[in-house]
Amino acid sequence: MKILVLGGDGYLGWPTALHLSEVGHDVAVADNFSRRGYDYEIGVESLVPIESLQTRIRAWRELTGKDIGYYIGDLCDPEFTYKIVRAFEPEAIVHFAEQRAAPYSMVDRKHAVYTQTNNVVGNLNVLYAIAEINPDIHLVKLGTMGEYGTPNIDIEEGWIEIEHKGRRDRVLFPKRPGSFYHLSKVHDSHNIEFACRIWGLRATDLNQGVVYGQQTPETARDDRLATRYDYDAVFGTVLNRFVIQSVLGKPLTVYGSGSQTRGIIEIRDTVRCLQLACENPTERGEFRVFNQMTQSLSVAQMAETIAKVSPDAVQIEHLDNPRVELENHHYNVVHSGLVELGLEPHLLSDTLIESLLEITKRYAHRVRPEAMVPTVQWRKTASKISN
Amino acid sequence: MKILVLGGDGYLGWPTALHLSEVGHDVAVADNFSRRGYDYEIGVESLVPIESLQTRIRAWRELTGKDIGYYIGDLCDPEFTYKIVRAFEPEAIVHFAEQRAAPYSMVDRKHAVYTQTNNVVGNLNVLYAIAEINPDIHLVKLGTMGEYGTPNIDIEEGWIEIEHKGRRDRVLFPKRPGSFYHLSKVHDSHNIEFACRIWGLRATDLNQGVVYGQQTPETARDDRLATRYDYDAVFGTVLNRFVIQSVLGKPLTVYGSGSQTRGIIEIRDTVRCLQLACENPTERGEFRVFNQMTQSLSVAQMAETIAKVSPDAVQIEHLDNPRVELENHHYNVVHSGLVELGLEPHLLSDTLIESLLEITKRYAHRVRPEAMVPTVQWRKTASKISN
Repeated sequence: MKILVLGGDGYLGWPTALHLSEVGHDVAVADNFSRRGYDYEIGVESLVPIESLQTRIRAWRELTGKDIGYYIGDLCDPEFTYKIVRAFEPEAIVHFAEQRAAPYSMVDRKHAVYTQTNNVVGNLNVLYAIAEINPDIHLVKLGTMGEYGTPNIDIEEGWIEIEHKGRRDRVLFPKRPGSFYHLSKVHDSHNIEFACRIWGLRATDLNQGVVYGQQTPETARDDRLATRYDYDAVFGTVLNRFVIQSVLGKPLTVYGSGSQTRGIIEIRDTVRCLQLACENPTERGEFRVFNQMTQSLSVAQMAETIAKVSPDAVQIEHLDNPRVELENHHYNVVHSGLVELGLEPHLLSDTLIESLLEITKRYAHRVRPEAMVPTVQWRKTASKISN
Repeated sequence: MKILVLGGDGYLGWPTALHLSEVGHDVAVADNFSRRGYDYEIGVESLVPIESLQTRIRAWRELTGKDIGYYIGDLCDPEFTYKIVRAFEPEAIVHFAEQRAAPYSMVDRKHAVYTQTNNVVGNLNVLYAIAEINPDIHLVKLGTMGEYGTPNIDIEEGWIEIEHKGRRDRVLFPKRPGSFYHLSKVHDSHNIEFACRIWGLRATDLNQGVVYGQQTPETARDDRLATRYDYDAVFGTVLNRFVIQSVLGKPLTVYGSGSQTRGIIEIRDTVRCLQLACENPTERGEFRVFNQMTQSLSVAQMAETIAKVSPDAVQIEHLDNPRVELENHHYNVVHSGLVELGLEPHLLSDTLIESLLEITKRYAHRVRPEAMVPTVQWRKTASKISN
C-alpha cells in the first residue's frame, strides 16, 4: 500500500514510517519540524540524539534498500496539503502531525490558541484534500484516550449504545477531556465523523493511551534511526520520565496521590496498531474508533513498577498536582478492536524497562534535571514553560 | 447589571442590547461588522434597511435617554478582547459574535476553516480574558440546537444522566451536528465546559433553535432601530424566508420532504431569554445549558403555517435537499430551564406572521429573488455562495 505519514519526523511518526516501510508498504512522510522547534522554546533536547530527517531516510535506504519519500511543509498551508496528497497518491494517510502535549497547550492563551488552531485547521485541510482529490483514501488519525476524560461509566470505543426514556440510539461517546490539547482532538473527532457522514470518507480514529518505550525493531538497527525520547515535564510522557528519574537517582515525581489511572501502550504496539489500521480500512462513510492502549495503570502503579525493576533504591515524591484531574476515579476501558485485527499486546514488563534503563544510562549526561519539574499549572492562565 | 454584548450589531445582538438597556441594565456592545461584510460577498442586503451602529445608538439615546457604549474590533484580536473586558468591567458577557450560518461554513474549505477558526479562537480569547481579568463574570454564550443533531433519543439540556453496564454518570449530551458551523459551536461548548472546570468560570450555553421574526418592542419604536432581516439562502432562516417567498408570490422552497424537524423561537423570546440568563447567573464553576427554543415544527409544518395565514394562494415546492440531514426522525426536546426562570413563550401565531407579512410587503422591492435559491451543497466540497 502507499501510505503517507503526516508528522513522520516525530516520536511515533518516524518509527511508524519505518515499520510500515519494513513490512513492505510504499511510505512517504511529511513534517514541518515544529516538534524540533518546541525544544528550542523549552530549552531541552531529546535524551537520545536524533538525526535530521534526511539522514534518517538515507540511513534506512543504506540498511534496507527501501526508499521513504519526504515532504517538508505545514498542513495548515492548504497548498502544501493538497500538493502532497496529489503527488504521492496515498491509499492511506496516517495523521500524527499535531501539537501533542497537554502542558504545552496549557502554558497560556497563545499556546492554547496555537494548539487548537494548528490541530483543527491542519486536520480540516487533510479532510478537504482527501474529499477533493480521492475520497477513497483511508484517514488513520491519532486521537487520544484523554478525549474521554474519566467518566464514571466504562469507556467504549468511540460510540456507545444508550437507552434513554425508553428509546435507544448509538451515539458518539461523550467527551470531557482535560486540556486544550485534548480538546483539540475532540474537535478533530467531531469534524472527522461529520466528513465521513457528508462526503462518505473512511476514517479510523485511534484514541491512543500514554506511550512508553523508545525502541522498535526498526529504530534499533542503527543509531541514526533512533526516535526522540523526551523527558521534560512538557513533552515527556510519564513512564519515560520515571525511568529517567530512576537512572539519575532522582525521586519519581508523582502528581497528586497518583491514584489517577491512564491507559498505556508500548511504542512497539503503537507501530503495529498503525499497520493493522492501515491494512484493514473502513468502509466508505464509516467513522471507526479504536482505543489504542493495552492496559490501564494508575500513576502510582507506574512509579512502583519502575521502582521495583530499578537496580538502585528509588524514592517516590508526590507533588501538588499541577493539573486539574480526578483522583480515585472509575476507569474501565474497552480496547478489543485492535486485538480483533491481530494486535498481540506487549504489556509493561521488566525486559522493556531494563532496555529503557540501559538507553537512559547511555545518555544520562544529556539530561537537564530541572526540565523535569513541572511549571505549567492548569489552574493558572499563564505559566512559565520551563525552569 | 453591566452587560457587554459581543456581536451587538447583528440580527439578534442588537435587539438584545436594546432590550437589556430598556429593562435597566448598563449595556455596551462590541462588533467587527463581519456580518455586514458577508452581505457584500453574497451580493445581498438585509430586507429591512439597517442603520450604522453609531446611528442606531444615537437614535436609542434620543428616544430613551439611555446610553449604549460601543467597541469596534475583532475578538480574534486578543488585545481588543482584553481591552474591552478591562474597560467596561461587565458582570455578564453575552456572546453572539460568531459566524452563524451553516451554509456559509459549507461553501468550501476556506469558509469552513474561517468559521471554525473565527468562532473557536474568538471564544477562547473571551474565556482567557474572563479568567485573567475577572473570573466572576458570567459568560452567556450562544450555542445552537443544531449541536445535538437528531439523535433517536430525547434531547436533554446539555447534560444527560446515563446508565451503562450497571454504572451511572451525568455526562455531556453527545453531539452530532450537521455543518462545520454547528461543529464550531460544539467545539466552543467543550472548551467552555473545560474552562468552568479548571478556572471556576461561570457559563450558560444557550442552544438556540431557529429564530424567526424581525421586531421586538424596542426595535419597533423607530425605523432607525430596526434589526436585519435576511432572506438569502445563506443567512436567511427558514421561516423568515418562507414569509418573504409568500409575499413575493414565489413557491416556498422546502428542502427534501420537509419532514426534518427543528426547534424554533421567536425573536421577542430570544431577547427575553438573554435577559433571564444574565439576571440569573450560574454558580462559579458551573457549566449550565439551556435549550433556547419554544416549540418544534417540521419544515413542512412551517411552510403549511405560512401558507395558511398568507392572504394569497401559496405554493410549496420541494427542492432536492442541499444538506445532509435525516428526514422522518425522532425529535423531542427538553426545554424547561428558561421557562423555570420565567420565560413565557410566544408560539408561532397568526399575529406574528401577519406583522412579518406587513414588514415584508413594505420592503419587497428590495428582494433579489435568485438569492433565495440554495447554491451551497453539503455533499460537495466547493459551491458558489450565491446565484
